[in-house]
Amino acid sequence: MLPSVSSRPRTGTEGSKSSDGRFFEDFTLDEVIIHAAPRTISDGDIALYHALTGNRFTLQTSNQFARDVGYNTAPIDDIFLFNAVFGLSVADISRNARANLGYAGCDFLAQVFVGETLSARSRVIGLRETSSGDSGIVYVMTEGLDHRDVPILRFIRWVLIPKRDPNTRTHISHVPDLPDQVHPITVPPHRLNRNWNDLRTGSPYRWEEYQVGEKIDHIDGVTVENTEHMTATRLYRNAARVHFDGLKMKDSAGGQRLVYGGHVIALARALSYNGLANACIVTAINAGRHSAPVHAGDTLYAWTEITECIALQNRSDIGALRLVTRAIKNEPCTEFQTAGDNLVLTLDYTVILPRR
Amino acid sequence: MLPSVSSRPRTGTEGSKSSDGRFFEDFTLDEVIIHAAPRTISDGDIALYHALTGNRFTLQTSNQFARDVGYNTAPIDDIFLFNAVFGLSVADISRNARANLGYAGCDFLAQVFVGETLSARSRVIGLRETSSGDSGIVYVMTEGLDHRDVPILRFIRWVLIPKRDPNTRTHISHVPDLPDQVHPITVPPHRLNRNWNDLRTGSPYRWEEYQVGEKIDHIDGVTVENTEHMTATRLYRNAARVHFDGLKMKDSAGGQRLVYGGHVIALARALSYNGLANACIVTAINAGRHSAPVHAGDTLYAWTEITECIALQNRSDIGALRLVTRAIKNEPCTEFQTAGDNLVLTLDYTVILPRR
Amino acid sequence: MLPSVSSRPRTGTEGSKSSDGRFFEDFTLDEVIIHAAPRTISDGDIALYHALTGNRFTLQTSNQFARDVGYNTAPIDDIFLFNAVFGLSVADISRNARANLGYAGCDFLAQVFVGETLSARSRVIGLRETSSGDSGIVYVMTEGLDHRDVPILRFIRWVLIPKRDPNTRTHISHVPDLPDQVHPITVPPHRLNRNWNDLRTGSPYRWEEYQVGEKIDHIDGVTVENTEHMTATRLYRNAARVHFDGLKMKDSAGGQRLVYGGHVIALARALSYNGLANACIVTAINAGRHSAPVHAGDTLYAWTEITECIALQNRSDIGALRLVTRAIKNEPCTEFQTAGDNLVLTLDYTVILPRR
Repeated sequence: MLPSVSSRPRTGTEGSKSSDGRFFEDFTLDEVIIHAAPRTISDGDIALYHALTGNRFTLQTSNQFARDVGYNTAPIDDIFLFNAVFGLSVADISRNARANLGYAGCDFLAQVFVGETLSARSRVIGLRETSSGDSGIVYVMTEGLDHRDVPILRFIRWVLIPKRDPNTRTHISHVPDLPDQVHPITVPPHRLNRNWNDLRTGSPYRWEEYQVGEKIDHIDGVTVENTEHMTATRLYRNAARVHFDGLKMKDSAGGQRLVYGGHVIALARALSYNGLANACIVTAINAGRHSAPVHAGDTLYAWTEITECIALQNRSDIGALRLVTRAIKNEPCTEFQTAGDNLVLTLDYTVILPRR
Repeated sequence: MLPSVSSRPRTGTEGSKSSDGRFFEDFTLDEVIIHAAPRTISDGDIALYHALTGNRFTLQTSNQFARDVGYNTAPIDDIFLFNAVFGLSVADISRNARANLGYAGCDFLAQVFVGETLSARSRVIGLRETSSGDSGIVYVMTEGLDHRDVPILRFIRWVLIPKRDPNTRTHISHVPDLPDQVHPITVPPHRLNRNWNDLRTGSPYRWEEYQVGEKIDHIDGVTVENTEHMTATRLYRNAARVHFDGLKMKDSAGGQRLVYGGHVIALARALSYNGLANACIVTAINAGRHSAPVHAGDTLYAWTEITECIALQNRSDIGALRLVTRAIKNEPCTEFQTAGDNLVLTLDYTVILPRR
Repeated sequence: MLPSVSSRPRTGTEGSKSSDGRFFEDFTLDEVIIHAAPRTISDGDIALYHALTGNRFTLQTSNQFARDVGYNTAPIDDIFLFNAVFGLSVADISRNARANLGYAGCDFLAQVFVGETLSARSRVIGLRETSSGDSGIVYVMTEGLDHRDVPILRFIRWVLIPKRDPNTRTHISHVPDLPDQVHPITVPPHRLNRNWNDLRTGSPYRWEEYQVGEKIDHIDGVTVENTEHMTATRLYRNAARVHFDGLKMKDSAGGQRLVYGGHVIALARALSYNGLANACIVTAINAGRHSAPVHAGDTLYAWTEITECIALQNRSDIGALRLVTRAIKNEPCTEFQTAGDNLVLTLDYTVILPRR
């Protein structure tokens, strides 16, 4: 990344030391924004994440299992890392966003362990004024960094941001090339040993058993509550008002607080354990889209389609699967719905499984 | 246990890799089921347990107190362990249960500390088709195991499970002998030293002060919320749909999600601190019964009767009490109710207290 | 403190081993009460605190940042400590309180780290029967102690407590002198090194930039939920019935459970990060008042006025600010309200910031 480090967010109220976040005019192409509030990930954060999502992927929940397959201790769940990095970027990038339009090119570069301190930075890689002119789309590439400032995670997202002054025109239109998949995928350097135990993970299905086109209904449903999504969103350090300020949100389209989309991803991933229990590592999110809002009281279900089976060079221990997981609200996934008002998430991502 | 280790749960949808759990026909007498998803217990899990239940038993909440009385660090709350082992067994045993009919013979075999990885296995010890023939009662003995696979906890439970095909008849009727108490009780090998400090625990009452027939109203009430019981139930790794899927549960008798019975036990135990603060170790659950459902919005109260005072051979430091704690919903326990629609829990268990 | 250590709380129901807490007659001037249930503060407690409040003050959330500025690891948030000490005192002092009338002289004597075991004791420093005679005001000085029994925090509070027998008269009227500020303030012995990084904390404003009379609207709002405040209150070990027993509270003025005032302080402090991100240490609470109740469903906002800029002798690394933060329910703080039915908290406190 270039060293054109930006100053802190602009203040909203003239002269006030508090910030109401950036508007479209406040972003500059190629600007690098250092996000504030790095956070150390503790055992407590991870326990809370598992208790809020129901995550049971065993490599991440059992230190003993992790040691058995060759790790020193359990790595941190990848979707937690995604949300934690995303969360750090919100105050600077999307505090005023009208919509999170999409993600792409999310590459999980390293496995991370309890005790790590995470920070984040973003580069503005695209800016496009909307045709109405009162807002614009901001494209950023965000990186999560470990305590040595080495990137552990990288993703692109784009958001619709209103202008501070809707009457100005910038005519800016710089749309970056967006990858439609992460390629090549990052392969964990760690080699799984032969002690992988399917009785422990809860699934007899290894990489070889999955077929392109196969569909899995993850069956279970989970009803979302306000305390739950707010606690999770604070765990991720995401302070966007739309998730917390019920009074302000009374005037919004949904009339209430929005559930943070990254928490919907976390819940869908946790539900997918039932059918994908050996898919222990997420190595990439190729694309993601939230097509409808989720509110407290909604019940979420998820189903997954296998879209690609990827053999990995020089790796007889593991293989990769490209998946599309969809989350549906308020109706089961028995029809494997790909559209409709109840489709809330379409997530195209790549996971690692042990081979036979 | 016999080594007739079972395969993974049967799949529901034909050919799907996800599981909708076992039905009555899927159980075989003497079969041993290895439960998936072992989990390491972290400081974070324990902090969350205490914050969700209000547990204040001091041996479990203060490392300093634990060291003062001769431990290296605070042991993990016994009811947490019970719930954590139970939770691991749910996906295989009771995912489809219509009712948890009872517990017996729950023997806490060891004290466990933060950092331990817990796994579980169950043996099918009884099977009885119901007279209607559309379901059956499954009796299992479940064991919690430490990272060396040494049992730390053992209990029997029996559940009512529907058949996959209600029209088949098995005529099976194998009912095991159920102990009406744990005998002899497991005595902690650790000898409490003389530094037990009643000002720290919050009660001047030691083992000698309790009398058979004595009744204690624990006074305090706690209103249960959906996020709270769901978070606790995920903390225990119990993924039964009845606790999470509000949409599906609209069609159930109660019309809403059920609070997991083990969390009711945890709340009743936490309430019992007010009157039993020195009863620091649970060594056995002799019998337990959930006689009415608990839902979000219900307020729980608890009271306890002392049913036996048990001196322990060669132990001048500690004694045991057998107790029956009852939890009542939506009315105080001032009448020491033993029946009625509001009685939700009857728990016959044995605790250890310091002696004078 | 004098060694006139009190016995345990009086029992309510005659002869019962449970306690319904102290009434006005149960307090004696100069009596020292040792509070029960010391608790070790774990990584899990801190993770939960941050996730329940949204705290992002970086010295407390990043071990790496703490090391960069000269600490060995992140200290524990001061308001957490205040609440944790307060919580331990509730069973003895304010279980039956009709109102928490105020705080004064809260002096944070030491920074505390994960792993510490906290206990507490209180001395009764004042008693005044109310004119109606059915209740009285109890003034206590409460100290939080580390595992060596060294005070780490000290504060005065006064509460309105009913009498057990409203018809007796004591005519007691001993009102202590209450300090209107903590003076001199406790200065952290630890000297911040030159590596304080404003890009990390999220604010370019150091001690020199704040002016007396300056007002900061912290902008963000947070809606409070029942599970959230109950979980936080249990995290603090505060077991007062008014926060948990929804059935009993139906008969109260508000008709529902009250949010614990100390949690309101914690939420206001977390909101104040937006505008005060470098105010990393709370060294004193000079005075605090809860002027209206908070219930689940209320949305809280906060604003702060700078009332004093305090240079610290022999310290070129840090300076202090005296602040008044007010929390308002159900309306934004854009008018910098100092009164009205929606004002729920007025907190006069002193913070430490790095200097240029």
